[in-house]
Amino acid sequence: MRLSRFFLPVLKETPADAQIASHRLMLRAGMIRQEAAGIYAWLPLGFRVLKKIEQIVREEQDRAGAVELLMPTLQPADLWRESGRYDDYGEEMLRIRDRHKRDLLYGPTNEEMITEIFRSACRSYKDLPKLLYHIQWKFRDEIRPRFGVMRGREFLMKDSYSFDLDEAGARAAYNKMFVAYLNTFARMGLKAVPMRADTGPIGGDLSHEFIILAETGESQVFCHADLVEMGAPGAVDFDGDLQPLVDARTALYAATDEMHEAERFAVEVPEAKRLSARGIEVGHIFYFGEKYSAPMKAVVTHPDGAQKPVHMGSYGVGVSRLAGAIIEASHDDAGIIWPESVAPFGAAIIDLKPGDADTGAACARAYEALTKAGKEPLWDDTDERPGGKFATMDLIGLPYQMVIGPRGLKEGKAEVKARRTGERHELGLDDAIARLAEGAFGG
Amino acid sequence: MRLSRFFLPVLKETPADAQIASHRLMLRAGMIRQEAAGIYAWLPLGFRVLKKIEQIVREEQDRAGAVELLMPTLQPADLWRESGRYDDYGEEMLRIRDRHKRDLLYGPTNEEMITEIFRSACRSYKDLPKLLYHIQWKFRDEIRPRFGVMRGREFLMKDSYSFDLDEAGARAAYNKMFVAYLNTFARMGLKAVPMRADTGPIGGDLSHEFIILAETGESQVFCHADLVEMGAPGAVDFDGDLQPLVDARTALYAATDEMHEAERFAVEVPEAKRLSARGIEVGHIFYFGEKYSAPMKAVVTHPDGAQKPVHMGSYGVGVSRLAGAIIEASHDDAGIIWPESVAPFGAAIIDLKPGDADTGAACARAYEALTKAGKEPLWDDTDERPGGKFATMDLIGLPYQMVIGPRGLKEGKAEVKARRTGERHELGLDDAIARLAEGAFGG
Repeated sequence: MRLSRFFLPVLKETPADAQIASHRLMLRAGMIRQEAAGIYAWLPLGFRVLKKIEQIVREEQDRAGAVELLMPTLQPADLWRESGRYDDYGEEMLRIRDRHKRDLLYGPTNEEMITEIFRSACRSYKDLPKLLYHIQWKFRDEIRPRFGVMRGREFLMKDSYSFDLDEAGARAAYNKMFVAYLNTFARMGLKAVPMRADTGPIGGDLSHEFIILAETGESQVFCHADLVEMGAPGAVDFDGDLQPLVDARTALYAATDEMHEAERFAVEVPEAKRLSARGIEVGHIFYFGEKYSAPMKAVVTHPDGAQKPVHMGSYGVGVSRLAGAIIEASHDDAGIIWPESVAPFGAAIIDLKPGDADTGAACARAYEALTKAGKEPLWDDTDERPGGKFATMDLIGLPYQMVIGPRGLKEGKAEVKARRTGERHELGLDDAIARLAEGAFGG
Repeated sequence: MRLSRFFLPVLKETPADAQIASHRLMLRAGMIRQEAAGIYAWLPLGFRVLKKIEQIVREEQDRAGAVELLMPTLQPADLWRESGRYDDYGEEMLRIRDRHKRDLLYGPTNEEMITEIFRSACRSYKDLPKLLYHIQWKFRDEIRPRFGVMRGREFLMKDSYSFDLDEAGARAAYNKMFVAYLNTFARMGLKAVPMRADTGPIGGDLSHEFIILAETGESQVFCHADLVEMGAPGAVDFDGDLQPLVDARTALYAATDEMHEAERFAVEVPEAKRLSARGIEVGHIFYFGEKYSAPMKAVVTHPDGAQKPVHMGSYGVGVSRLAGAIIEASHDDAGIIWPESVAPFGAAIIDLKPGDADTGAACARAYEALTKAGKEPLWDDTDERPGGKFATMDLIGLPYQMVIGPRGLKEGKAEVKARRTGERHELGLDDAIARLAEGAFGG
């Protein structure tokens, strides 16, 4: 992408009403623009990050055997009357009446609708297990939306739903999502800790939140410090027994504020390992058995002929919120530092003298080679001054900057800067291009 | 994907209330499920088609130089008061009031919001031209939603917006989209004819609809028959002069009902070439100059220091509607016939004797090879009877079916059936796999 054709409205000044780093940086970097309280447009730079995050979430869901569909944003109120949540949900639910005076709502979550879809098609134990997900915009009418996309009203969520014959089956599905989530967040460079959590308005018996530790987190969390560095399982057989992987992570103490037991924490965790910190929730998984299937009559015939409600769970990832969470975990005074996996572009190519035939040709060569290598370069071909270009590139946080100026080029050289470390390498132009294309620089 | 893990709720019976082929077939093939009038869930099979269509639209937009972003589904009413359309739009606009009694609406289109985004960032001729697009769910509260996704209320649209200094620049942007649309629809196997069209609620001076001819089309259209077979330009230089390509297609008569001039049609088109048919609108492009930029004060400084509103156009593709339109154009009595470019899976592998070690191993080999070749096979490993399997596969319309049964396998053979032609080839198993993987069968 040539910057002159892109749309990157960076802000010189820090927006006054943005309280946390990710909100400030997303506004300054021209990633988002607020259209109404808690409702954002994702400008081209932000959109590219959002798509990368979404794709990682999707790939890890697919790997775990979940099947994607897409439910609509609007739902009929009658569905929620079946489960009893239409009245329970309160003012956070955005209620809508159409021209024929029918009650709709903007879905804050999809337990009811997926249960309706399941029950319309599956009637036998032979149809089980099923594990379905979608990635769709949701709306929760927060009374005080804030922190940018971290606590918006219209937000993108991945939500999965499992349907099993019994609790053991549901537990296996729960474990699949537990492990898939560890891998998902690790791929984005995040250290997410699963913590016992309250089930809230979803309800149920068993629940874990996946928490990123960050000073700006919205809730207090408590855990054994070893959990933070435990890492993700990576490639596993999702049809195999995942219980040991889950047990290894639930054996150590970890709980959100609502579930915290100070006494147990003190007894179970050695003092030097007691971590009490602020946390950002990026995922939340629930096992709730028959909570929806019983009232909504999502019933299957068992092998013995008995008819019983299926056992369900639901599993959410805050896709749009993750863009903010990643920035909270990875930035410095100059701006954002994207992990390569979610960077909007893989590298910047900075022309220090646009209009000059030589730097232009060198940039074009780099651009072509990096594009071919799948690095998705952003070529700054604008006539801004070098100082402004460097500041913008540091702000938007691409992993690498390749600087091509007339002085270096006279000696056939270009400079490569790694955004995370600040390390600079002066290299022959072709060498620089080849190494960037190969991903041969340290991050 | 193994069918036993997929979610494919095919219907045995034809839904009574579905009046047109695409609606009937999408319901029967388990592609969609209605959740409220004109509001559909895209079940896994339908979702895969929707994603393929969306991706083709995206690639052709990118090729034309458009830059993607994502605006929210909900918009503040005040924006639409600026343009004057809040009152004009009538009951098709879904109006919403949030908990703080602020007026929102579910966007039926995005001219106002993109103009607001543009004016917040661009103030000089140096910032032009800009060509932005997004692919987002829209809502129009149709009084009588019908024909499934062809005339739904919640629908997926790609909408692009161009910003130029003057009419000549805007015309160049218009031509880019004109050509991009020809290529877009051709890649989906559709013969789309650009026709002079009424500008309706978008307004403006110049407008073309892209129309697929189909008996079930919602409007009457009139054109020179040669336009239908004219084909798409394919690879072009989008920075070059596209006017000749556009002129070649606008020189011949083509108009929708509202713009039809019977006398001109009779004079300009030889009788043998006069085509009067039903048409489905799949795209619509508009040049409307200062219609939004003037009232909304999207003004830029010209090189001579003058400040003038930018010239704008907007360009829509009905992404979800295309799934229906493609089926209208490509089906037979047995079901859907997908063009390969948008097929939900590239081929079916049908195990005629699930549980048999030999057929299972042969299917696994085919599955692995076709997956590796990027053909995304659907492996029917269920224990349904062969007749049911064949009927389902014909219904869902994958381009190829590879049938593996114990009898053929004894001689090392498998059968490949091309869905479109019905042609069957009996081949050695490895030969069949290799030829399918290479795409060596005619469609």
